Amino acid sequence: MVYYLRCMENKYTYQQLKAFTREIFCKMGCNEKDAETATVNLLSADLRGVDSHGIARLSGYVRLWETQRVNIHPEISIIHETPSTGVVDGDSGLGLIVAPFSMDLAIKKAKEVGTGWVSVQNSNHFGIAGQYAMMALSHEMIGIAMTNASALVAPTFSKEKMLGTNPISVAIPAGTEPPFVADFATTTAANGKLEILQRKNQPVPDGWVQGKEGQSSNDAFELKKGGALLPLGSDRDRSSHKGYMMGSIVDIFSGVLSGANFGPWVPPFPAYIPIPENQPGKGIGHFFGAMRIDAFRSANDFKNNMDQWIQRFRNAEPIDSKQKVIIPGEPERQFELERKNNGIKLLEEVVNDLKSLGEKFSVKL
Amino acid sequence: MVYYLRCMENKYTYQQLKAFTREIFCKMGCNEKDAETATVNLLSADLRGVDSHGIARLSGYVRLWETQRVNIHPEISIIHETPSTGVVDGDSGLGLIVAPFSMDLAIKKAKEVGTGWVSVQNSNHFGIAGQYAMMALSHEMIGIAMTNASALVAPTFSKEKMLGTNPISVAIPAGTEPPFVADFATTTAANGKLEILQRKNQPVPDGWVQGKEGQSSNDAFELKKGGALLPLGSDRDRSSHKGYMMGSIVDIFSGVLSGANFGPWVPPFPAYIPIPENQPGKGIGHFFGAMRIDAFRSANDFKNNMDQWIQRFRNAEPIDSKQKVIIPGEPERQFELERKNNGIKLLEEVVNDLKSLGEKFSVKL
Repeated sequence: MVYYLRCMENKYTYQQLKAFTREIFCKMGCNEKDAETATVNLLSADLRGVDSHGIARLSGYVRLWETQRVNIHPEISIIHETPSTGVVDGDSGLGLIVAPFSMDLAIKKAKEVGTGWVSVQNSNHFGIAGQYAMMALSHEMIGIAMTNASALVAPTFSKEKMLGTNPISVAIPAGTEPPFVADFATTTAANGKLEILQRKNQPVPDGWVQGKEGQSSNDAFELKKGGALLPLGSDRDRSSHKGYMMGSIVDIFSGVLSGANFGPWVPPFPAYIPIPENQPGKGIGHFFGAMRIDAFRSANDFKNNMDQWIQRFRNAEPIDSKQKVIIPGEPERQFELERKNNGIKLLEEVVNDLKSLGEKFSVKL
Repeated sequence: MVYYLRCMENKYTYQQLKAFTREIFCKMGCNEKDAETATVNLLSADLRGVDSHGIARLSGYVRLWETQRVNIHPEISIIHETPSTGVVDGDSGLGLIVAPFSMDLAIKKAKEVGTGWVSVQNSNHFGIAGQYAMMALSHEMIGIAMTNASALVAPTFSKEKMLGTNPISVAIPAGTEPPFVADFATTTAANGKLEILQRKNQPVPDGWVQGKEGQSSNDAFELKKGGALLPLGSDRDRSSHKGYMMGSIVDIFSGVLSGANFGPWVPPFPAYIPIPENQPGKGIGHFFGAMRIDAFRSANDFKNNMDQWIQRFRNAEPIDSKQKVIIPGEPERQFELERKNNGIKLLEEVVNDLKSLGEKFSVKL
């Protein structure tokens, strides 16, 4: 059955992908523990249906290591702290390892003084933000995670790309209901959605991208022609300045507060793109937060109210009776259940890319 | 000159409006200190160009007091705290007084342990969020303020109004540059913008509102006909679910974390609208945060980088050379300078409303 899935559908079990990925990280030089951590965090994207940020990027991480932009033996350290805050230097390590270290620190501080807030410098891409925000849930805490990224987004009125897709995740525990997990880029459309339309050779909806001169465009390839993604809101009439502000806040909390790079100086993910000149800081920046529920009120009372919140919103009168209101995190949880049981289907080109990688490192997919 | 301004242009000096407003609050029974605080916080909206949230609402606050929805002698208290957190019970007081009390508490905690986070129950409307976020600036802190409000916004896929315009403000100090101050509703368009088009009898742009059945609409009066405001993003294609998620996070941090009301149970501002039945909490909720810059890194280094951030973004290549990229807070600061010097022009109907109020309380405008 597995063989059939492999050949006919490019479908793999989570365990297969996990074994492969962990082995690649080990071959890069990661110790066992780091390889496991990086693998689980990377593949959380595939499990949760964010295909663009998971195993499809594994060869990108390898290239960052090959070009010595990633330090595979980082000495991650806390360079500044107070009872409720910390700054972490990731020593150019994989964001997939630096991020959980930093979120653990935020959680530790929240245990001690109610909340913990950690800004991170000198890191690299960390996969999906939701994975780290959700680390807080089992501690009966609200978790927050965000990161800056290399510039693909034009602020309102700008031709120039100044901000990354700068995602924000907020995970909030509930009682009998599953948790509320918001995880979203501060742009109108994620780059991954653009790529889907590129493959189909279809136009993108109004408000996703602009051309090189700032003109509105429906060309899915616009970003490759010098254009830019648009902030959440799309255009001035529909308040793109609000998406620009949100992306800026993520950039400042992640980059400026930590001493990492910010704005157009954030290093790119593709290793073939040169690192911006005259960088003001170190590497990529992240920001994490943890707030203990019972630092505000009884965790039970809170959870009861969260259940009520979730049930009331789920049962809001729908426009179309076939499509209920979605609670943040529900679609990703559905993906996770389905994919853990039935495997993960990869695109042909991702499989080919992974196979080349496997050959290079003598690891079988 | 002042006489001329009054009669011909409905223009008043800030001091005139301040004296009038303070007197009204005193007549309502506020003590001198509270009347001063409420006045400064209410009129900060008029100074900063947010005309919908300032003195135009004064008679609305009076009506809330007349219908005993506002307690003019509140005993504001801290009902729960840890070193970095607190929950405040506003005792049904004016949000204009409860909010600065709560933000002061957040600042005090940030002085002690690096950051402070305060969730508030049993409050009322507080004017503009930016006023409280900016309280942190003089302490070399980042300030955060948000509030929930009565339901005007339909989540993605919903006919029903479930969320308020739930604004977020983040104020960040800089060095030689003025501070970065973001202050925005989590909707595509503010209700105030709708009102401007109602007065002109003009249609609204696509993506601002939906009709009663959830259909798209350009009718500026749609909200009065049972329709709803749309979350930032406008529609599903342009990621309205992200605006819905942001509004939800504000609602949960303000309402669920504090024990206030949330979602469709948040009490309305207009006193003629009945309070929702079976409310799960007390009054309106707010959430405030303060983060000491030097709890993360040297305040000087941070400010230098913020100046660099601001200058780089301001000088991003513009689409149109006549319109530079705007730094959050710049337009409001321009308004404030201009209006402090040249007075504040009020709409005819606002002046008439204030004059009736003045007659009722024997206070001269």
